[in-house]
Amino acid sequence: MAPSKLSLESRKKHHILTIAGSDSSGGAGIQADLKTIEAFGCYGSSVLTGLTAQNTQGVQAVHEVPAEFVVQQLKSVISDDIPTCIKIGMLTNASIIKSIAKELKNLNTINILDPVMISTSGHTLLPEDAIEALKELYPSINHFTPNIPEAIKLTNYSKLKSKFNSTSNGSNNVNNNLNLEEMILLAKETNLKTGAFTVLLKGGHSSIKRQELLNLKGKYKIIWEQSDEDSDDIEVLSLFSKYIEIQQQQHQDNLVVDILVNKGEIQCLFVNKKIESKNTHGTGCTLSTAIACTYATESREGPDDWNFRMFKRAIAYTQSAIASATPFGQGHGPLNHSHLSVKRTLPPPTKHNPHPFLSHLIQSNLPLWKSYVQHPFVVQLGKGTLPRECFEHYIKQDYHYLKHYARAHALGAYKADSFEDISAFTDIASHVARESQMHVAYCESFGITLEELEKTPESAPCAAYARYVIDVGTQGDLLDLYMSVASCLVGYGEVGLWLKKQVDKGEAVLEGNLYKRWMEDYSGKDFLNAVERGIENLERRVAENPPSETRLTQLTHIWHECVRLESAFWEMGLKLQK
Amino acid sequence: MAPSKLSLESRKKHHILTIAGSDSSGGAGIQADLKTIEAFGCYGSSVLTGLTAQNTQGVQAVHEVPAEFVVQQLKSVISDDIPTCIKIGMLTNASIIKSIAKELKNLNTINILDPVMISTSGHTLLPEDAIEALKELYPSINHFTPNIPEAIKLTNYSKLKSKFNSTSNGSNNVNNNLNLEEMILLAKETNLKTGAFTVLLKGGHSSIKRQELLNLKGKYKIIWEQSDEDSDDIEVLSLFSKYIEIQQQQHQDNLVVDILVNKGEIQCLFVNKKIESKNTHGTGCTLSTAIACTYATESREGPDDWNFRMFKRAIAYTQSAIASATPFGQGHGPLNHSHLSVKRTLPPPTKHNPHPFLSHLIQSNLPLWKSYVQHPFVVQLGKGTLPRECFEHYIKQDYHYLKHYARAHALGAYKADSFEDISAFTDIASHVARESQMHVAYCESFGITLEELEKTPESAPCAAYARYVIDVGTQGDLLDLYMSVASCLVGYGEVGLWLKKQVDKGEAVLEGNLYKRWMEDYSGKDFLNAVERGIENLERRVAENPPSETRLTQLTHIWHECVRLESAFWEMGLKLQK
Repeated sequence: MAPSKLSLESRKKHHILTIAGSDSSGGAGIQADLKTIEAFGCYGSSVLTGLTAQNTQGVQAVHEVPAEFVVQQLKSVISDDIPTCIKIGMLTNASIIKSIAKELKNLNTINILDPVMISTSGHTLLPEDAIEALKELYPSINHFTPNIPEAIKLTNYSKLKSKFNSTSNGSNNVNNNLNLEEMILLAKETNLKTGAFTVLLKGGHSSIKRQELLNLKGKYKIIWEQSDEDSDDIEVLSLFSKYIEIQQQQHQDNLVVDILVNKGEIQCLFVNKKIESKNTHGTGCTLSTAIACTYATESREGPDDWNFRMFKRAIAYTQSAIASATPFGQGHGPLNHSHLSVKRTLPPPTKHNPHPFLSHLIQSNLPLWKSYVQHPFVVQLGKGTLPRECFEHYIKQDYHYLKHYARAHALGAYKADSFEDISAFTDIASHVARESQMHVAYCESFGITLEELEKTPESAPCAAYARYVIDVGTQGDLLDLYMSVASCLVGYGEVGLWLKKQVDKGEAVLEGNLYKRWMEDYSGKDFLNAVERGIENLERRVAENPPSETRLTQLTHIWHECVRLESAFWEMGLKLQK
Repeated sequence: MAPSKLSLESRKKHHILTIAGSDSSGGAGIQADLKTIEAFGCYGSSVLTGLTAQNTQGVQAVHEVPAEFVVQQLKSVISDDIPTCIKIGMLTNASIIKSIAKELKNLNTINILDPVMISTSGHTLLPEDAIEALKELYPSINHFTPNIPEAIKLTNYSKLKSKFNSTSNGSNNVNNNLNLEEMILLAKETNLKTGAFTVLLKGGHSSIKRQELLNLKGKYKIIWEQSDEDSDDIEVLSLFSKYIEIQQQQHQDNLVVDILVNKGEIQCLFVNKKIESKNTHGTGCTLSTAIACTYATESREGPDDWNFRMFKRAIAYTQSAIASATPFGQGHGPLNHSHLSVKRTLPPPTKHNPHPFLSHLIQSNLPLWKSYVQHPFVVQLGKGTLPRECFEHYIKQDYHYLKHYARAHALGAYKADSFEDISAFTDIASHVARESQMHVAYCESFGITLEELEKTPESAPCAAYARYVIDVGTQGDLLDLYMSVASCLVGYGEVGLWLKKQVDKGEAVLEGNLYKRWMEDYSGKDFLNAVERGIENLERRVAENPPSETRLTQLTHIWHECVRLESAFWEMGLKLQK
């Protein structure tokens, strides 16, 4: 059996610290970082290096945070809980860089540096002397994620250019649209100059042609989007989307290649289709933080243990965040950081609220539930004033109902896929068969033979309910079946307990009550144990497999239908309906 | 039919701006606010008023942001996109308060003020002169959420005290542990003095006895936790949890009451059991931001239109965030802001990636998929080199398989709950019945009569596959059934397309090929349309009802089993297996 979600929920989250600037518009900086960290289910803290007054159109002003206060924030965070990974973004000035470099030396954290130098909107965020100071930070950096302009700046690419004499077309223009070979050299050079354990050179500024990649096939590991393997020849993945067809026509030669280098060796090329979108504000912040999160959450042997999947997951997250973003603001809008999350329809079970599903079911229509468990039939039964003929009619029909109820559990055993569930269902079916003996005994005491009991025609309310349960169980899955039998089990437990309480309060009587055995059976330990197991089972199934909104609506509908049919069943007894 | 999730995803999120301080440890301030906003699926931006160097043990230092820069941030945000709600938290000093008050006057936003004056750890965060300045802000505030010490400070409660002569026990100590009547007066007084549209007086500092509340029953609307109605007498909700039993024994008289006042009138009392927890750092920030989110997301007539549910949902979210939090740091740990989210197991469909589910299914075991759709049987069939007896054996068995495949779709029609689905399934069943005519025609051309065809014994690989499909369909729900028939449909489409491509590349032949009709049928428009509809249907079902991890594993398992059985089916043909 899968571990209960309760224990999963209570596991401490991975702590990711971001050292970066604030973007008031919420799309980049620590805001993007914290949103990404939430998306990956980690815990985010932040040290601010500078504040920007910013929106999707640009950076309007910057407020630098004093270096001492930056250090003070960092000390406050790490003196309390050491993060697994630290993502370092905008560093504002040389003084802050030097202070952070000093602090990081003594920490055994995995550090990812995204050298934020220019905002998406083109604003310079790191002065020249600060770029020099970055060298002091490099020894502490595990993963480094520059884009092409940043890598060119940091490696002084103009010197590297001479190496291209043989391939260059003689032009003196060094623009950012490098070809793949140039990018590979740049990535290696960046790895060499920074000494970072890995460098991921982000290729978003260059468009790479498919043929360039095919030329390198076999030489380097190429990881195409959405696959670790070569899925180029799977037809159904591309043929049935007019969107993709259009994209393929327009952009099949417009690929983005991110290059991963480790210890001077190219490890792989991550290839993605270019997404045409204005919503790219904060892409760099998001990707580097996503790497921190995937690094923290994948199991590792040590800080230098890594795999392709970490980078691939982070890149895929960032791609989907761009692709699923909606326009926001007047300029470059933010990414959709929460695209990986679905809203939980029920809170997780906690000690404080151990039965959120049952609570939802009952409270989603409390008057309906009360009309069932506190029905006049029940009230009169408790007082002993219920006419015997009503009870007689009810108990005969309930005898029929129980047969179908037992069959429903047998169907549950058929639908189960573990021996544990098979046993549980067949146990209940046997238990229900025994429960029918009380009905036989009551009928005998009323002078009704077993033969007469068996021959009693099924009333419409009984058939409506019993056949509904069987049909839901056949039509749906095991949980649907479970839902269709739950309100009877839980409701009779409620009735048993409620009547007991009424007896204590003097509003019902037990001694001398014709229905004493019935009342005792449904408030007895045996039956209540079964109710408790049933509730735990229901909660466990739902916690292990959290329902979507659509699914919760379906399940709640089955519950309400059964509650309504239960209520009609009492009514049948009271009104002697056929 | 429910609207597709694709359109839901692409709806612009509600924009919530937080004007507050930064908490480096991530548990309070804008960090808590942004995490809360993410949890509610809204979009968060932030204006920083001050930075704290802080952890779970306390505030170690504060850096004030110049008032002009606060205004600059606010202007950057609102000049780009007007938020629906603004939550205002720590304001640091009088100058900032006055600047913000001036800006808010011209904005038509819903403003929630949480007067952060003292941190959970006891640090004073607002000087005396700033408290006076708050009066300038009040006219712009819609909802005000002070706790008891804050409300006492802001209303100068000592004056109010004289009103308690009749009820007070003569003690001169004014401590924060007010009784319920005192809290009600305080809430009204706060509403009066601030002029806020509503005041939610947070009662966490006072323990209220159950009897105090019962005395007020009928006088005020009392909303017990997890219910809008009186569910006190539902036994099953409390009896089966030993945790709750313990809590009831220990704390049934330890209730937290939050009081909602609107225009001087008490609207309701929200009652919750006190949660004993150290993880309460940032509770106030979280609750006020949660109110901003519930206010933004509930449908409203206008800014002053409100309902109980907004406050109740925000309080319930905060309670669960405390209850589900795990220890973090050495002092008061943060709340679990993400308890409402579950990780999506598949990215939402986008134009860029329209079939994430199919992509997952195929790529989760690409070698298995290829071993099916590019099986030697298929390769030889395309080249026309497949021995006729192999094809004959295959086509006879496939005739049997199709009968069960049609039955599976009829079972789908039985399991469907819309006329649309019923028609879709019966249409496919008819289509499959027609498809069998090709089999009959091939057999006739091989000299096999229909009678002989019908009498051919079902081979083990055919029975294994066909009966698996029927059993999965019977055992599970409609989606399970859908999964069990999908890999045949999609795989034959793939084979049809792939063979067509092989013909184009000269690696397969059509003219003069004995299997021409077969190849043309499965690459024909009719069949490929059915494949496309099948894929769209699958994606829609999964997007509308996003699968949990457990569910996705089940669905993927069915897919892989069928792919394996399909592969074995070709193998049967090639090896003439009985």
